[in-house]
Amino acid sequence: MKLSHYFLPTLKETPAEAQIASHRLMLRAGLVNQETSGIYTWLPLGLKVLENIQKIVCEEQDRIGCHKVLMPTIQPAELWKKSGRYEAYGKEMLRITDRHDREMLYGPTNEEVITDVVAQYVKSYRALPLVLYQIQWKFRDEIRPRFGVMRGREFLMKDGYSFDLTVESATETYKKIYEAYLRTFNRMGLTAIPVRADTGAIGGNLSHEFQIVAPTGESTIYYDVQFDTLTPEQMTFDRASTLYAAADEMHKPEDCSVPVGQLKEARGIEIGHIFYFGTKYSEPLGAKVTTQDGKTIPLEMGSYGIGVSRLVGAIIEASHDDKGIIWPEAVAPFKIGLINLKAGDTKADTLAEGLYTQLRTAGIDVLYDDRDERAGTKFADMDLIGLPWQVVIGNKTIDTGMVEIKYRKTGDKQDVSLDKVIELVR
Amino acid sequence: MKLSHYFLPTLKETPAEAQIASHRLMLRAGLVNQETSGIYTWLPLGLKVLENIQKIVCEEQDRIGCHKVLMPTIQPAELWKKSGRYEAYGKEMLRITDRHDREMLYGPTNEEVITDVVAQYVKSYRALPLVLYQIQWKFRDEIRPRFGVMRGREFLMKDGYSFDLTVESATETYKKIYEAYLRTFNRMGLTAIPVRADTGAIGGNLSHEFQIVAPTGESTIYYDVQFDTLTPEQMTFDRASTLYAAADEMHKPEDCSVPVGQLKEARGIEIGHIFYFGTKYSEPLGAKVTTQDGKTIPLEMGSYGIGVSRLVGAIIEASHDDKGIIWPEAVAPFKIGLINLKAGDTKADTLAEGLYTQLRTAGIDVLYDDRDERAGTKFADMDLIGLPWQVVIGNKTIDTGMVEIKYRKTGDKQDVSLDKVIELVR
Repeated sequence: MKLSHYFLPTLKETPAEAQIASHRLMLRAGLVNQETSGIYTWLPLGLKVLENIQKIVCEEQDRIGCHKVLMPTIQPAELWKKSGRYEAYGKEMLRITDRHDREMLYGPTNEEVITDVVAQYVKSYRALPLVLYQIQWKFRDEIRPRFGVMRGREFLMKDGYSFDLTVESATETYKKIYEAYLRTFNRMGLTAIPVRADTGAIGGNLSHEFQIVAPTGESTIYYDVQFDTLTPEQMTFDRASTLYAAADEMHKPEDCSVPVGQLKEARGIEIGHIFYFGTKYSEPLGAKVTTQDGKTIPLEMGSYGIGVSRLVGAIIEASHDDKGIIWPEAVAPFKIGLINLKAGDTKADTLAEGLYTQLRTAGIDVLYDDRDERAGTKFADMDLIGLPWQVVIGNKTIDTGMVEIKYRKTGDKQDVSLDKVIELVR
Repeated sequence: MKLSHYFLPTLKETPAEAQIASHRLMLRAGLVNQETSGIYTWLPLGLKVLENIQKIVCEEQDRIGCHKVLMPTIQPAELWKKSGRYEAYGKEMLRITDRHDREMLYGPTNEEVITDVVAQYVKSYRALPLVLYQIQWKFRDEIRPRFGVMRGREFLMKDGYSFDLTVESATETYKKIYEAYLRTFNRMGLTAIPVRADTGAIGGNLSHEFQIVAPTGESTIYYDVQFDTLTPEQMTFDRASTLYAAADEMHKPEDCSVPVGQLKEARGIEIGHIFYFGTKYSEPLGAKVTTQDGKTIPLEMGSYGIGVSRLVGAIIEASHDDKGIIWPEAVAPFKIGLINLKAGDTKADTLAEGLYTQLRTAGIDVLYDDRDERAGTKFADMDLIGLPWQVVIGNKTIDTGMVEIKYRKTGDKQDVSLDKVIELVR
């Protein structure tokens, strides 16, 4: 993509309303535009990150045999009356009346809709276990939206729902998804700590939140320092869930068996939340199957959420510096920023265009800064938007065929010849 | 994907409420589930088609240099008051009040939001031309939703918006997108006829609807028979727009220069609609730029829509038979249906599993019917869901290593040896 033809409105000034780094950087780097309180338009660069995150989430869900569906954003109120949550949900639920005065709502979560779908079509134990998931926009009418996409009102979430015949099978499903979540976050360059959590509005008996450590985290988490020593492969449910980790409302110092010197206290950002709640929804909504013995029993259910739009902010909170964002490679909007310091100079343009074509032919996503701007502006913008690699074409390239390559994360720079660029960044 | 582990709830009975083929078949083939009037959940098979369509739409938009964004579904009413459409839109607009009593709405289209975004960030003629598009859910509170996803209330649309400095440049952009639309539909196996159309609620001076011919079409279209002879390559704006083609409200027999014998009358389904409307929105919303001469002028705009969820129904209307859907390859949810007639037989299972693995390794998307069901049920389900190819493993395969391959579209069958399957279906 050539920057001169792209829509990337970066800001020089820091927007006054933004209190935390991710919010400031998302506005300054032209990732989003606020439409009204807690509601955003995703601009091209931000949308690419959002789509990269979605792709990883879907791949890890599909890998363990979950099936992707898509529920509507607008739902009939009836289902929520059946489950008993219509009154209970309070003012965070965006309630709507259609032209025929029917009560509707903008789904804040989808246990009711999916349970009703399964109740209609799944009649036999042979169809189980079954996990259905979607990535869809949700709305929660927060009283005070803040921190940009971290606590917005309209937000993108992956929500999954599991249906099993028995408690044992449901627990196995829960473990499988727990581990898939850890893999998902790991692929995004994040170390997530699964903490025991309150089941809150969803209800149920077993629940974990996935938290990443960041100074701006909204809650305090307490966890065994051993978490910091586990490799991703060692983060199985059976291992990780025996280590102490709790969100503040679940932490009881008197019940904590971890020695003080081994207990870490940190601020955490919640990026995922999973629940096992048995028959809480399958009973009232009639999701029942016939067992092998001919009995009819309600399904054992769980639900599993990942804050997809929130993750964009959370990743930035975990990975930035004074100059801007530092994207982990797996979610970066482009892999390389190609900076032509002598845009307009025929030789430099030819060399830059050549390298640009070469990189694209190799399937590498590159943003080419071909603008007629000062070097300082180009470097600052490139640091701000945080692509993993920066490749600089300048006088040196014209004279010697060497380009400067900077790795954004460490700031390390090296000169390489034009024909070695692809080899280095692959 | 193994059918025994998939979520594909096909129905034997034809749902009473469905009046047209696509609605009936979408329900029977387990593509969607109705949640309430005009609002659907997309089940796994339907969602795959919807995603395939989106992919083609995006590729053709990106190819001509459009940039993808994503606007929120919920918008503040203020912008619509500025444009004058808040009152004008009537009851089809889903109006919402949030917890702070602010007036909001579920976007039925997005001229206001995108013009406001561009007004904030685009200040110079140098950023032009600019085309931004999105694929996002819309809501129109139809008084009588019907025909399934063809006239739903919550529907998925690609909406694009162009911004140009001059009328001439805006016209060039309009032509470029017109041609991209024809390529888009052509890739989906559809022949779309661009007819001159009324500009309706969007307003403006130039507009085309893209219609496909189907007996269940909602409007009558009149077009020069020469359209039926043009190759996709010949369908340029300059050529196609000189041929007579009009939707009924624009058709004036007295002004039609086409000889009666050369004028076709048919029912059409609208799958796209494009508008050029000049400064209708840029004026009131302040989207203005500085020209090279230092003047400040409002942008010339157009908007461009494709009914993405509607296309799923439209494609079925254009391509089905008594037995079910016939998916064009480019949008088919799977390329191949692999039917094991002897599921449970060790030899048949081994052969089927082997072919299944081989096909997947070759990157071919295959649905493997490994269920313990009667042959009749398996054939009927496979015809119903309409995958392009059916590959049958049975007694013959065990005895001679030959499989039967059926091409769904023509019904042609042939026997080939197991090792030739990939070659044939590629």
